[in-house]
Amino acid sequence: MGILLKDILAILPEGNEDVIRQTSIYIEGNRIVSVGREPEGFSADKVIDGKDRLAMPGLINCHTHSYMSFMRNVADDLSFMDWLFGTIDPIEQKMTDEDTYWGACLAIIEMMKSGTTCFNDMQMNIHQTTRAVKESGMRAVISRGLVGSGDDEGGQMRLRQAYEERDAARDCDRLTFMLGPHAPYTCDDAYMRIVSEEAKRNNMGIHVHLSESVSEIEQIKEKYGCSPIEMAEKNGLFDVPSIAAHCVQITESDMDILKRKNVSVVTNPASNMKLGNGFAPVPAMLEKGINVCLGTDGAASNNSLNMFHELNLLTLIHKGVNKTPQCVSAKEGFKIATINGARALGLEKETGTIEEGKKADIAILDLNNPSLMPTNNLIAGLSYSANGSEVDTVIIDGKITMENRKILTMDEKLVYQKVNEIINRLK
Amino acid sequence: MGILLKDILAILPEGNEDVIRQTSIYIEGNRIVSVGREPEGFSADKVIDGKDRLAMPGLINCHTHSYMSFMRNVADDLSFMDWLFGTIDPIEQKMTDEDTYWGACLAIIEMMKSGTTCFNDMQMNIHQTTRAVKESGMRAVISRGLVGSGDDEGGQMRLRQAYEERDAARDCDRLTFMLGPHAPYTCDDAYMRIVSEEAKRNNMGIHVHLSESVSEIEQIKEKYGCSPIEMAEKNGLFDVPSIAAHCVQITESDMDILKRKNVSVVTNPASNMKLGNGFAPVPAMLEKGINVCLGTDGAASNNSLNMFHELNLLTLIHKGVNKTPQCVSAKEGFKIATINGARALGLEKETGTIEEGKKADIAILDLNNPSLMPTNNLIAGLSYSANGSEVDTVIIDGKITMENRKILTMDEKLVYQKVNEIINRLK
Repeated sequence: MGILLKDILAILPEGNEDVIRQTSIYIEGNRIVSVGREPEGFSADKVIDGKDRLAMPGLINCHTHSYMSFMRNVADDLSFMDWLFGTIDPIEQKMTDEDTYWGACLAIIEMMKSGTTCFNDMQMNIHQTTRAVKESGMRAVISRGLVGSGDDEGGQMRLRQAYEERDAARDCDRLTFMLGPHAPYTCDDAYMRIVSEEAKRNNMGIHVHLSESVSEIEQIKEKYGCSPIEMAEKNGLFDVPSIAAHCVQITESDMDILKRKNVSVVTNPASNMKLGNGFAPVPAMLEKGINVCLGTDGAASNNSLNMFHELNLLTLIHKGVNKTPQCVSAKEGFKIATINGARALGLEKETGTIEEGKKADIAILDLNNPSLMPTNNLIAGLSYSANGSEVDTVIIDGKITMENRKILTMDEKLVYQKVNEIINRLK
Repeated sequence: MGILLKDILAILPEGNEDVIRQTSIYIEGNRIVSVGREPEGFSADKVIDGKDRLAMPGLINCHTHSYMSFMRNVADDLSFMDWLFGTIDPIEQKMTDEDTYWGACLAIIEMMKSGTTCFNDMQMNIHQTTRAVKESGMRAVISRGLVGSGDDEGGQMRLRQAYEERDAARDCDRLTFMLGPHAPYTCDDAYMRIVSEEAKRNNMGIHVHLSESVSEIEQIKEKYGCSPIEMAEKNGLFDVPSIAAHCVQITESDMDILKRKNVSVVTNPASNMKLGNGFAPVPAMLEKGINVCLGTDGAASNNSLNMFHELNLLTLIHKGVNKTPQCVSAKEGFKIATINGARALGLEKETGTIEEGKKADIAILDLNNPSLMPTNNLIAGLSYSANGSEVDTVIIDGKITMENRKILTMDEKLVYQKVNEIINRLK
């Protein structure tokens, strides 16, 4: 199927810069076959008129737990312990596999409607999420969340499940898989070593939570005499392509390790504030040349999966923290929310920019919205004034998955009904 | 005209709490005549079906400069001096009265579309803003921005203009007026005294910028040997009902003055971060019992006039700054964005809650949005997951001004065309 985005403003990479150009974009199969010039023999089954529209690469949400979306707004303004043990944990004990499917569906609807075309998920049951991903047309990288200790049979069992679940979803090339050792406080050092050896042997990346809270730092210091970053490095986690979520409480020397080992850091500004963990040192990490990307975390601790919301926070809070209006600019924020995410997931050759040869993962915004008016600097607009509802059409892997704000691949109302039933049953 | 909101979820005040109840709301003329029971002889010209909808009091934006909306996204990621003198000031020198009208129109469209029903504006030419307010059906409190010194004829002239402009707009009861001495660094002490005497004599409130930046604190300390708050108090600004925007850089003793003099503080989280000024001590002000309300500031320094965006920042950032997830809860944030704003503007008997006898200023949200699903705690949803686009209908002063996201009182496309022409001419 050929899709033509005709005479449209588009955000395109030129060298190291992102620029806005009036152009046309040609899509065949799941790829962008040309930007600007009509390819020979191209035939469009579908023409999207670019008038008053902006095409941008879809946003990449590099850290979330999609199944948790049915827990949105269920536990707010609580201490971490009351949040986790008072509400979230009891619900997780009672939820069924089917519940996690509807949670993932809700997450995907919310992400698609706000211009996200790829997400990186940590899960306890990836069957249900891969099912939602396959049906919805979304792109995703999925990690089985692993907790355990070196001598614990449960940890081994979860590893075997991770492979089984991965293998069961091999028929969908929008899906890739990582291993997800949960965190240094839920995996001991022996188990971390087992997981990193497995990742190496299976040629898989690692997705891990690191240095999220002060209490984590204290706990790891007491147990291992080092920082969570040092603990992860020692146990080989960074010897494969690795992506570390949070990194809020980190030192200069932790940053040196992250840079040296080429670890990508996912910053999750809303979740870090909401749970009282503070602000990750993003300007310092950028200064070091660390690949920083952006994530929403789960809807139980954000409570939004809207990446425009997260981009806005990313480009505002560090100006406040560092008392300088020049840090984390809109242009930097845009890269962090797109191509840096693709790089973190090992997908930089496939997605993250609108370029000939890449997969067609594109969000199209309706400029006839007050938040984007006047249209004089739309990259700044994405960070500072858009709210995500300006996205009217989404193309993922060359397929139109949302058009005029209607999701074409899922039944929105059914999903809303199901998640309401679930939370009323479980809470 | 009678309007019935039939069988709708609504946020209603019960004692000091806001609760969500299924009810019906009866509107006659510009007032809510009943909540729950159908009044005798009530006849509805218009029935709004409440299924899958939430009625909430309209949000109150307590500090903005509406005309600046045509400067949205025109000067970002710059130092304050480059922002002001390099871009904003040169544009303001060239803009015409008509330009400020279209700026105000854009601001009103953006605010209405995100559920704001009343705003507090500081202006250099209030004729054009009052024109836009009258036409749009919006509610507003308008201050002529006043700058000058005690012996300066310009300052006196601007005061006379403030009265002329106010008197010319006396025919619209959605409009009220304050005097707007700009800031301690643009009004000297003698001029501040003149303005506060005028406010007292004319029974008007005062809207002022105070303690926004470190450089303001240093400048006022050097010139007057005291803080901006102390300078304002000494010159009588707090002897009339007064509303102080920003209050970022304030001490414990400044807070005691604000509390003792019953000054309302407008916090503007996005603008304070974006310009590198930091975070106002909102939790400490709330602890003191100061009436804190919420504002967006102008679109040149935010760059959004979406109060949902601001409410989200308000309820997230202080948790990060104070490293506690319990501060500035969603319920506190909701009050700050509604009834506290009404109180700050002297309108608490007229607006800010859905109550019998108050003006009908109501935003209606479509719950069929992923951001509000599941619907188990909608007050938390307003702060943490809504983005403003869920608002589908707005009623101000008993008139429907927006229905199904279409503004009924203004020509949106014409406004978009005009602001693009203006910024292309001026920048």
